[in-house]
Amino acid sequence: MKNAYYAQSGGVTSVINCSAYGLVTKLQKLSPETNVFASNNGINGLLEDRLYDLSKTVKPLSLLAESPGAMFGSCRTKLPDLNNIKFYENIFKKLSEKSIRYFFYNGGNDSADTCLKISQASKILGYELNAISIPKTIDNDLMVTDNCPGFGSVAKYVATSAKEASLDVKSMCKTSTKVFILEVMGRNAGWIAASAELANSGTDIYVHKILVPEVVFDAERFISGVSNDVDEFGFCVVVASEGLKDKSNNFFSNVGESDTFGHVQLGGVAPKLANLIQTHLGFKHHWSVSDYLQRSARHLASKVDVEQAIAVGEYAAELAVSGKTELMPIIKRLSNSPYAWEISQGELSAIANKEKILPSDFIRDDGFRMSKKGVEYLSPLIQGEIFPKFKNGVPEYEQLDLHM
Amino acid sequence: MKNAYYAQSGGVTSVINCSAYGLVTKLQKLSPETNVFASNNGINGLLEDRLYDLSKTVKPLSLLAESPGAMFGSCRTKLPDLNNIKFYENIFKKLSEKSIRYFFYNGGNDSADTCLKISQASKILGYELNAISIPKTIDNDLMVTDNCPGFGSVAKYVATSAKEASLDVKSMCKTSTKVFILEVMGRNAGWIAASAELANSGTDIYVHKILVPEVVFDAERFISGVSNDVDEFGFCVVVASEGLKDKSNNFFSNVGESDTFGHVQLGGVAPKLANLIQTHLGFKHHWSVSDYLQRSARHLASKVDVEQAIAVGEYAAELAVSGKTELMPIIKRLSNSPYAWEISQGELSAIANKEKILPSDFIRDDGFRMSKKGVEYLSPLIQGEIFPKFKNGVPEYEQLDLHM
Repeated sequence: MKNAYYAQSGGVTSVINCSAYGLVTKLQKLSPETNVFASNNGINGLLEDRLYDLSKTVKPLSLLAESPGAMFGSCRTKLPDLNNIKFYENIFKKLSEKSIRYFFYNGGNDSADTCLKISQASKILGYELNAISIPKTIDNDLMVTDNCPGFGSVAKYVATSAKEASLDVKSMCKTSTKVFILEVMGRNAGWIAASAELANSGTDIYVHKILVPEVVFDAERFISGVSNDVDEFGFCVVVASEGLKDKSNNFFSNVGESDTFGHVQLGGVAPKLANLIQTHLGFKHHWSVSDYLQRSARHLASKVDVEQAIAVGEYAAELAVSGKTELMPIIKRLSNSPYAWEISQGELSAIANKEKILPSDFIRDDGFRMSKKGVEYLSPLIQGEIFPKFKNGVPEYEQLDLHM
Repeated sequence: MKNAYYAQSGGVTSVINCSAYGLVTKLQKLSPETNVFASNNGINGLLEDRLYDLSKTVKPLSLLAESPGAMFGSCRTKLPDLNNIKFYENIFKKLSEKSIRYFFYNGGNDSADTCLKISQASKILGYELNAISIPKTIDNDLMVTDNCPGFGSVAKYVATSAKEASLDVKSMCKTSTKVFILEVMGRNAGWIAASAELANSGTDIYVHKILVPEVVFDAERFISGVSNDVDEFGFCVVVASEGLKDKSNNFFSNVGESDTFGHVQLGGVAPKLANLIQTHLGFKHHWSVSDYLQRSARHLASKVDVEQAIAVGEYAAELAVSGKTELMPIIKRLSNSPYAWEISQGELSAIANKEKILPSDFIRDDGFRMSKKGVEYLSPLIQGEIFPKFKNGVPEYEQLDLHM
């Protein structure tokens, strides 16, 4: 009897539940006797005995493929070092009680670290376990894999939103707003902001300035660039990463903004950039911070992203059932045009706690736009629409019935 | 020979071009010899001789029905008083040069004022003109009409986005973010924030606090309300109007935030509310400002809204051709369930420069949610999906070829 444990971890995406769907349905095929226990709030559900027995769920699991967020709850919990062996003994005691031999952890680079530690501890303590990490992150910053499930849908949302807002500003710019700034996620890697380039096509320019953490923010060059855009196009649309850094490697949104608790969350890059423009150019401006909207917008998910999210879940089941451990299914790009991909596998040790930033040749020489090479990489990831079911004018997003 | 003038004015919407489509196609049927001149940037295009002759446009006018923003450009220009008669003589000279006898102005309450002044001036100066205003505003604040084209799509966007973000926060709340705040438009009227209530259904509560300008903002009650929600649900989602006011009738986002130019734009209600929560409750929070994204999101337009936007354009053509003037097509609700509506007409003098706010019985007694009556009003306006054509993963939004 080999049962399975599945948990969702870290910041959620609009397609993380698709991976759960792929995993569970594939396990049902490969190992029908396996019960899947889905952990409430990541690893915390295991520690605190909140495991949902999916065999008791009555509603169809296909609901997973339509709902954003983490159906079972996520967590931001880092595991202790392996020398805290009591902690891990407790983990395996709990896994053993449920006859769990397959361990699946769905998340980003921190979650890969969690999965790796569990696997290493299982070897030290002689507990037979197949520990597989399932990739998920809107940040697209995992090593080894060509791209990350969750990213394509955010990229589609950002490119679409930037294009729509650009048509709005263009309408108004003669007598009103001339500059629009959209702030998107990405603290260290600029993949999400970079995807705004996909709003542009040929000579139709909707997004004029893209600011990524990989390029040091130079206020003077930015201001003169915006001024030039307003001269040339009549308006300027800026898409900026929240993680924009100045030449001292400080977060741009950080300056003078920490509150009494030391939190830097309040800043916001967009209002700061707007302030710069106001002070130096005096242009009427608007700004938007898309925050959670971007990563939960299942209504605008990329079909490719949904397919890949399901596929990595399925492949994780195959890896575990075939006796593998300490691996993560990864996406391998076979060709750009036509886009072709397959699922392969990567070593967790090559992924955990590492970060992949934008390659410099994806960024144009002026640092404000993405190169042809960058677009060739990004474009396939946002292809295809897969709208959810709507009910009463809003997406239904029916949730599963979950039972301990 | 009676030609037509059409202009778009004020803040744009995702369906204002639908009204242009309805107007022009109906005029082609009712009065095939009529040429339509579309004004670049509202009334400014007339004053500065930038009129597009739509008979020269080669691409299909149906592209209008798919693109957000103002295809011909909008403006924020208020006309002088009627005693500045030279100004109006110049206007009619220009209209006369193009044999224009039908004047259509597509906008909100300010634009109704423009249209009214033009009509009154035409009478004073003896210029035969049928001046019809076409309603458009995301704010839903026009008098006489039951609702305003442009609003339903924003309402659908806000309800959808709030629901999606709520699923995100719910996933994270155990160990991370507990409060999410979404700021939406609405300086004096809370219709847009109110529409977030449509994310909720029965006992499925996705949005816990709705803050509208019609209800005086009481920080203490808000903080304790959020605290209660976190106790009860584990998290709290807040949707707030930008125009939130305190008991002295000052904009909440205004306090201490004006820059050296005296602009108050920089504030943002969402970061201010987040700051309150941080200071008093210490909960981890996230906030989003949807700004132009909400009003340009044609990818999530309401089908009812698109149909009504087209219908008011068509009706405007009928009014003008049948010799009417100083009117605006309005939407009349015939029943709530099933929702039934028809187009009727309203006097410009009853609409211009007036504002309709949320009725008090649309708001629950606690001031934080919408009542059953409010939901019955709002719900029909967001029904139906009408996705645009996508190309390469983003909405195509092909623009018309325009020629002077």
